[in-house]
Amino acid sequence: MIIIGEKLNGTRKAVAAAIRERDAEFIKNLAKEQDEGGSTFLDVNAGTAPDREPEDMVWMVNLIQEVSDLPLCLDSANPAAIKAGLGAVNKTPMINSVSGEQARIDGVLPLALEHKTDLILLALNDKGIPATVEGRMEIIRQLIGMARDGGLEDEKLYIDPLVIAISTGTNNAMVTYDTIKTITQEFPKVHITGGASNISFGMPLRPLINRYFMAMAVQAGLDSAIINPNDRELKGAIMTSEMLMGRDKFCMSFNKAFRAGLIGPKPEK
Amino acid sequence: MIIIGEKLNGTRKAVAAAIRERDAEFIKNLAKEQDEGGSTFLDVNAGTAPDREPEDMVWMVNLIQEVSDLPLCLDSANPAAIKAGLGAVNKTPMINSVSGEQARIDGVLPLALEHKTDLILLALNDKGIPATVEGRMEIIRQLIGMARDGGLEDEKLYIDPLVIAISTGTNNAMVTYDTIKTITQEFPKVHITGGASNISFGMPLRPLINRYFMAMAVQAGLDSAIINPNDRELKGAIMTSEMLMGRDKFCMSFNKAFRAGLIGPKPEK
Repeated sequence: MIIIGEKLNGTRKAVAAAIRERDAEFIKNLAKEQDEGGSTFLDVNAGTAPDREPEDMVWMVNLIQEVSDLPLCLDSANPAAIKAGLGAVNKTPMINSVSGEQARIDGVLPLALEHKTDLILLALNDKGIPATVEGRMEIIRQLIGMARDGGLEDEKLYIDPLVIAISTGTNNAMVTYDTIKTITQEFPKVHITGGASNISFGMPLRPLINRYFMAMAVQAGLDSAIINPNDRELKGAIMTSEMLMGRDKFCMSFNKAFRAGLIGPKPEK
Repeated sequence: MIIIGEKLNGTRKAVAAAIRERDAEFIKNLAKEQDEGGSTFLDVNAGTAPDREPEDMVWMVNLIQEVSDLPLCLDSANPAAIKAGLGAVNKTPMINSVSGEQARIDGVLPLALEHKTDLILLALNDKGIPATVEGRMEIIRQLIGMARDGGLEDEKLYIDPLVIAISTGTNNAMVTYDTIKTITQEFPKVHITGGASNISFGMPLRPLINRYFMAMAVQAGLDSAIINPNDRELKGAIMTSEMLMGRDKFCMSFNKAFRAGLIGPKPEK
């Protein structure tokens, strides 16, 4: 499982405050914690103030690279912020994200093509998230086509099929699972990624729903996740479902994570 | 989800003792508890002493029917015990089970055909549980064929594809999932059932593995489960996975179970 650690995100209150107050320790600790938690990439989002964002992105990238060797995932809708981040990274990063929205196609896609980065593609466009599998596949086919035309290999693409809250539609998880299955059939070499929490908006027991949503997405074909790598319950869901799908030879990763105390009920102090 | 409450089982120590000591309250409480926990059927297994089993079965059936109106699932490899149970039940029961083992085909199948009961069919024969999907499907096809020839409708059949511990083979859960998918394609009207615990023999964190195994079996096509209906974590797994599969209109069952305090973290006392 390719884990994109999601916590260094300036749209979260505590991170926004740390950016504003230049609290370097806070940022470095979040990076370290997620590195040790088993991330493959660390997502970096410098917040939503367009004038400050490029400068804040560079500040964050530099700090994170002091404490972690992981490749970063530059997360912004703002081409100037992505560009600034690209100038600061030590390793070729991932970019989060290009969608069918024209502004992202015009502004962000060329940067991914130029720097040959890994790239997250979202199944939405200027009209929003399509309700149907076919609607999402149209956007996905268009975006994969553009990435291929620009010279990006399928292995560098991470498709996020997106999910709409189950509280607003009984079949909303199924649309995501069926989109995942369709992608794996049509494009066997791309990665499929996504977050755990949108499914449960408006529902009680959100962590419970998020965990089973994720396990069932793994069964459908998800091989990457944008999550908090230190959430031991969610980590347990992912490791268990990967093991049950036959992707954990002799259950070695599961047993190792158990022995290291990373999954299962929290040990008593 | 058609839930077969598994706890009235004489191979469990406490139940064996209750049967031996004629502890009627113990048996009745277990029945009531599982009825209130949302069972569809109550499994009744009178233990393994062939000479006493028919008499013990009748004693249990009579007690359970004092406190529950649910149909029973007569659970034995011993035709005499099943026959005794059939004479005592108020409602047409389920029979657990017929397999490809010749003794069961000869001894138990005729009773199910004669009484037109619901019937659990196990994917094993005198050589054991086949390692492959095709091996299990051969037995399943043979057994469904015999049930049909005897006049049982597909709707009365509950196929248990069985599962071998994941600790003994990396792909063991996948064999079960793929068997489930094959059954749903070939025999769309039969039910598919199974237990939660064999998958995790020899592993740490067994309840965790059992829960995700069950959720992913629901995703593959399981519509019945042989479980402890009072296990709130396992119940949460099943209700959540059914909801995510689009089988819970407007999330009504999930929300109702939440409000009734049946799923989610146990409330503090």
